[in-house]
Amino acid sequence: MPRIARASTLEPMDKQALRLRQTLTVGLGARSYDIVIGTGLLADAAVFGTAAAAPSSAQALIVTNTTVGPLYADRLMQTLSQRHARVSALSLPDGESYKNWETLNLIFDDLLRKGADRKSVLYALGGGVVGDMAGFAAACYMRGIAFVQVPTTLLAQVDSSVGGKTAINHPLGKNMVGAFYQPRLVACDLETLNTLPARELSAGLAEVIKYGAIYDMAFMAWLEENLDALRALDPRALAHAVRRSCQIKAEVVTQDERESGLRAILNFGHTFGHAIEAGMGYGAWLHGEGVAAGMVMAAELSLEMGLTDDSAFAQRLRRLLARAGLPTRGPLIHPADNAGRYLELMRVDKKSEAGQIRFVLTGAAGRAIVCAAPDALVRRVIDRCCAAP
Amino acid sequence: MPRIARASTLEPMDKQALRLRQTLTVGLGARSYDIVIGTGLLADAAVFGTAAAAPSSAQALIVTNTTVGPLYADRLMQTLSQRHARVSALSLPDGESYKNWETLNLIFDDLLRKGADRKSVLYALGGGVVGDMAGFAAACYMRGIAFVQVPTTLLAQVDSSVGGKTAINHPLGKNMVGAFYQPRLVACDLETLNTLPARELSAGLAEVIKYGAIYDMAFMAWLEENLDALRALDPRALAHAVRRSCQIKAEVVTQDERESGLRAILNFGHTFGHAIEAGMGYGAWLHGEGVAAGMVMAAELSLEMGLTDDSAFAQRLRRLLARAGLPTRGPLIHPADNAGRYLELMRVDKKSEAGQIRFVLTGAAGRAIVCAAPDALVRRVIDRCCAAP
Repeated sequence: MPRIARASTLEPMDKQALRLRQTLTVGLGARSYDIVIGTGLLADAAVFGTAAAAPSSAQALIVTNTTVGPLYADRLMQTLSQRHARVSALSLPDGESYKNWETLNLIFDDLLRKGADRKSVLYALGGGVVGDMAGFAAACYMRGIAFVQVPTTLLAQVDSSVGGKTAINHPLGKNMVGAFYQPRLVACDLETLNTLPARELSAGLAEVIKYGAIYDMAFMAWLEENLDALRALDPRALAHAVRRSCQIKAEVVTQDERESGLRAILNFGHTFGHAIEAGMGYGAWLHGEGVAAGMVMAAELSLEMGLTDDSAFAQRLRRLLARAGLPTRGPLIHPADNAGRYLELMRVDKKSEAGQIRFVLTGAAGRAIVCAAPDALVRRVIDRCCAAP
Repeated sequence: MPRIARASTLEPMDKQALRLRQTLTVGLGARSYDIVIGTGLLADAAVFGTAAAAPSSAQALIVTNTTVGPLYADRLMQTLSQRHARVSALSLPDGESYKNWETLNLIFDDLLRKGADRKSVLYALGGGVVGDMAGFAAACYMRGIAFVQVPTTLLAQVDSSVGGKTAINHPLGKNMVGAFYQPRLVACDLETLNTLPARELSAGLAEVIKYGAIYDMAFMAWLEENLDALRALDPRALAHAVRRSCQIKAEVVTQDERESGLRAILNFGHTFGHAIEAGMGYGAWLHGEGVAAGMVMAAELSLEMGLTDDSAFAQRLRRLLARAGLPTRGPLIHPADNAGRYLELMRVDKKSEAGQIRFVLTGAAGRAIVCAAPDALVRRVIDRCCAAP
């Protein structure tokens, strides 16, 4: 009966949700910006109409990729042509393996060929890779031009488009070359998630679950309740998950823009996760998949370290991630010395200091802490948490 | 007799000058830093000893080039080894033509191979090219690590090492990809100028003369008085010229860090100058040589525009530049349409907006203003001020 009662109210509420516009502000002084979450944003010039987002009489370049461009670039181009004298789109090859200097240079080439000046605005239409590259290009082109994030994946909406981290990969490490550079606006159009492959939706859910695990156990409980609705793309559920995730990220980033302290907790699962991504070759595992397995490993390491004796938390995390369609075990990344290869990769991670790896661990459920760990314990966790050959 | 009187007091004053240490502070809030000017700095660990300049327990990398490295890298390495656990040096190929992504990537490769973490410090030992590349590498490596400028050319000491502009060139434009990124310290060791080729000393004097021309006519008069002493590397004269130049640049930069207004006056001569550099192929003309001819052209354009009727100023500028060993006429950069090619190159300059070229012109002597100019007048100036075929 309660199920039916909820279902009967769903339709009108959904219609309401479709018209919903929610705005969060990331308060960073002169670099503050809004995150707009809702539906139909791509077709609404008013969303992009603040003076801060779009300097007047400016040229606009939409940076997108060969997957997202055909779906949404025309719509956005039409909308932006109401705000900018000249609007064009540049389609990059799709995938993490293209997040490098060569692809970044395509953006610079295009901007220079079109005579883009310092007042030009870059729009990043796509997932995290497009956002990272367009953001870094905006940070560097003529030493900085305005840019706007229009994330079209769940991962980008809840994570990479908020917080101002931009970067490209280097053959020796992920996101090694980049800048802290804030967008002027983030516009999360939930409708774009309708065309997102299920595997990528799951990868985004990994980061959503992370926010619960490190910051808000009530949100974790809400996720346990609503995970099926999220996977079914229920707009009300999506709106709540994206909003709460962005809120948590904004709260953390506002307190620590340049990752000197608190912000590090957002890397829960990322130390192991980055090693998985690098060890498998960028693109083989999605970022969110690496983070999912990495969070389980971090939770297990917390137990191993004696920081908590709450083994129920690791179990709960594992169950939720599995329901989200995510891996809960790491891959084997070396045939002979798997743990050694993980350690080697983690030591060159940006978060390591003087060769000491910094892990984000969970003290008590919902409380993240950053610390080092003895190699022997890390090895034991890797051996236990990675897939058998 | 006055000449002899001055000569007789020179020796003891020179010895004093050799021990002289002067410190200016560039006040940019949390990004403030000191400029130390003097002799013997490279061998003095105390100069590099502030906590801000060198985070403790850190690895240091000296970025230099194949010309400057053999002369000074060992000395600096020895000095820095008193402050850092690990110090190494990386020698880049010398020259503006190497100021590109490929060379920049050598720095990233080296940092990653050595496992350099976020607490590492980059030292730029060399001229403007080394400073621009090391600075941009520091801005991007792991999204920002500390860096210190140790400029060894007059140009770098009075200009490029102060103000936080870093960049690399793009085939379609100079300094098109870069960042505003402040050093933690600038250490100008005047002794390094003893090994500077005369042509490069002259190129540095172009920027010194610029500060007089745009900001301080008393300094311009002092330069007319002391130009021979500067070319003879008189340490007292050098110390004054470097200090006053840095003071003027710091005053301007402090008021306008990101070049939204006043800072543009520092580009006097640079609009024409960049076109000369690009038109001749980077490296053929030194930056200071392009700026010298460019300043004459800008002064002539000011007359042409009727902003001033003080033709004596352009004449005075021309005479001073010639005494400094600098060109006062631009080169021909196109066999058929020389002025057209200049205009084309100036239109893609970073300072242009919506295709409109912004010139820094001189209203009255010592008063710089930024404005646009009709193509016809610009053409006339180019035709008059460029060398005959």
